[in-house]
Amino acid sequence: MKVSVIVIGDELLLGQVTDTNSGYLARCMAPWGWEVAYVQTIGDDASAIRSAIDRAFSLTDVVLTTGGLGPTKDDITKGVLRQYFGGEMITDPEVTANIERLFAHRGLKLNELTAAQAIVPSSCRVIQNTAGTAPIMWFERDGKVLVSMPGVPYETQTMFRSQVLPQLLERFQSDVSIAHAVTIVTGYTESALAMKIAPWEEALPPYLHLAYLPKPGIVRLRIDGVHADASFIEREVAAAAAELRALLGDAVLSTADIPPEEELLDRCRRAGLTLATAESCTGGNVAHRLTLIPGASDVVVGGVVSYSNDVKINLLGVDPADIAAYGAVSEQVAGQMAAGVARATGATLTVATSGIAGPGGGSEEKPVGTVCFGAAIVKDGVMKTSVTTAHFNGDRARVIDSASTRAILEAIKLIN
Amino acid sequence: MKVSVIVIGDELLLGQVTDTNSGYLARCMAPWGWEVAYVQTIGDDASAIRSAIDRAFSLTDVVLTTGGLGPTKDDITKGVLRQYFGGEMITDPEVTANIERLFAHRGLKLNELTAAQAIVPSSCRVIQNTAGTAPIMWFERDGKVLVSMPGVPYETQTMFRSQVLPQLLERFQSDVSIAHAVTIVTGYTESALAMKIAPWEEALPPYLHLAYLPKPGIVRLRIDGVHADASFIEREVAAAAAELRALLGDAVLSTADIPPEEELLDRCRRAGLTLATAESCTGGNVAHRLTLIPGASDVVVGGVVSYSNDVKINLLGVDPADIAAYGAVSEQVAGQMAAGVARATGATLTVATSGIAGPGGGSEEKPVGTVCFGAAIVKDGVMKTSVTTAHFNGDRARVIDSASTRAILEAIKLIN
Repeated sequence: MKVSVIVIGDELLLGQVTDTNSGYLARCMAPWGWEVAYVQTIGDDASAIRSAIDRAFSLTDVVLTTGGLGPTKDDITKGVLRQYFGGEMITDPEVTANIERLFAHRGLKLNELTAAQAIVPSSCRVIQNTAGTAPIMWFERDGKVLVSMPGVPYETQTMFRSQVLPQLLERFQSDVSIAHAVTIVTGYTESALAMKIAPWEEALPPYLHLAYLPKPGIVRLRIDGVHADASFIEREVAAAAAELRALLGDAVLSTADIPPEEELLDRCRRAGLTLATAESCTGGNVAHRLTLIPGASDVVVGGVVSYSNDVKINLLGVDPADIAAYGAVSEQVAGQMAAGVARATGATLTVATSGIAGPGGGSEEKPVGTVCFGAAIVKDGVMKTSVTTAHFNGDRARVIDSASTRAILEAIKLIN
Repeated sequence: MKVSVIVIGDELLLGQVTDTNSGYLARCMAPWGWEVAYVQTIGDDASAIRSAIDRAFSLTDVVLTTGGLGPTKDDITKGVLRQYFGGEMITDPEVTANIERLFAHRGLKLNELTAAQAIVPSSCRVIQNTAGTAPIMWFERDGKVLVSMPGVPYETQTMFRSQVLPQLLERFQSDVSIAHAVTIVTGYTESALAMKIAPWEEALPPYLHLAYLPKPGIVRLRIDGVHADASFIEREVAAAAAELRALLGDAVLSTADIPPEEELLDRCRRAGLTLATAESCTGGNVAHRLTLIPGASDVVVGGVVSYSNDVKINLLGVDPADIAAYGAVSEQVAGQMAAGVARATGATLTVATSGIAGPGGGSEEKPVGTVCFGAAIVKDGVMKTSVTTAHFNGDRARVIDSASTRAILEAIKLIN
């Protein structure tokens, strides 16, 4: 089943917020073989909304809209949907009760703008929103369905997963089977990887498709298969993935579709290691990415953000003479940071970063984007360390992101 | 001038990557009164690309496309553009030279897939891409312009800002003046804020428009003005912003369009304070958000991620008896963490978090989303601390994000 998405809101066209809902909807539907075929992003404008719905219905039988349902004056979607599908505006007592419950739970007083969210077109069936105040509206016409959802990602995503998708699956039966396999690869640029696997890729049968998804430091390779026979396509995708992985050998970081930080946590768990970070230029981002993963507290004991030299010296035991001799951005200092945080926290695997994220602070010898890494592992009471230096392109956020990924990969290397 | 954007790539429809380019383009163009009126996201499919271009040209005279230009087999945009605008495929020697330079700089060997990126339709004018290997292609027909750019955000954004936008502005003259003012507000929900300012908002003249942009813990209010007379609209927007700020008083966090972390750094700089963090449930995200801001090293000395109790006790001096009596997630412990990181790092302003980000770890007394905050300030050698507790909704990432914003707001409160 193909689906169109219409993302509504001036703030999206202005670039003030980024749409993450349409991608979430696509990922939710993929396991059922449903795909997003087309996304339109439009402003809070009646004629743009009508025209986008017309075009979406000309392409697909299911249309999902997000946004334009807030309590404030600039949100007009509900009125446009009433005109489009007919009926009159009525108050839904269940929505009123839901809003009152939510506000009571938060200890807030209900105001009239919020209460007005219970007014809906009589031509829709309401799906109660348990995650917020804007009701979800299901419209049908000529066998086609439009579901209007709020734009707040937490509400849209919670309600789509728990209510809207199950009801769509019940309404339309899926008739194809799909399978996919992801392989995370390090050590190749996208084009070098494409050259390496070209003969294999060209020999893929027509029901298998390979997609490249490069990110700083890694490339995700995804094999998608579509076929009428479920067990056939599962076997074919698994066989193709096994061939690909054999071809790439040690460059395969992971055969699960997980970020490098989750791979690191899994490998620490299997090896009985605990993890700590010592971060200068990445400023806490390595620890943040690790601790975003549920269950990280099994493995992560903590870390130190040592932005100033004093913190490097006092909390991590870096030798001030080495900072003076080699600079804070040096393999000598990064190695001492990794060893220091192991001593300070008792962690048995650590990783450290010290670099120049920019835009200021660069020099001819150490330009912006220069990052030194240290890692330390303690096995049977003996500490082993490694150090390396890399150069990253891009602005401050990109250097921090790339260096954080690299730090995680350096820690993984030391386990093996 | 109104602009359509076409975002091309299967990975976007699959939800494997999120489009941030269209928002960036909108923010770049806004100061010139240019606006993105319509965004279409489509897959790597020839008929979808042709149909999206037709529709975009029916709505606007300028169309920007991003993506679909990579070196791998799944990227077909260039061939479709050649069919659409005519001409034949030719090799552009300047593109070849640019790619060779880039690869030499990175110490990489040029491969044939990358070399093929220099092949372009003869119907386009090439804008040399100094940030990557895919050329930027400018097509014209019947007074309308389509510019095809790569999808890698760093390349698209660098090249749009430095080359494509200046050339578009030269090609089409802007005839309206715009002005805007942003006010960042705390302490209100979106609907309560809308109620509070409704009389003022309803009295706004037709050339001024107010937009609400809620984020966890803050609401951004943006006044946009459009008029033929540049100095008139600047005065009008400034006067309306001054009225709004007078109406909201202490709830105004910032009159600059900056995130709370940048506001905190600015206030620390003005007050001569240095900053450190002690993070348990936010796992380094507060430090990360602070150090993403260029120049953060003036103010931020560092921090401790104290995920385990041992790190809380050994690095931050938290009393183990208090952890046993009140639990790690308690105002007692959060207050000691804030005081401890001030002692450990010498910072004069600190903030600490201890909470339950979920999905596990909640209890009846302390459900998932419970976060305790501590903050400490040192003035004239005397330390003052504050503590508070809040409850956040949502999944792990949302609780971490909301708690990080709140931590930053708690630090700001202590300065005043």
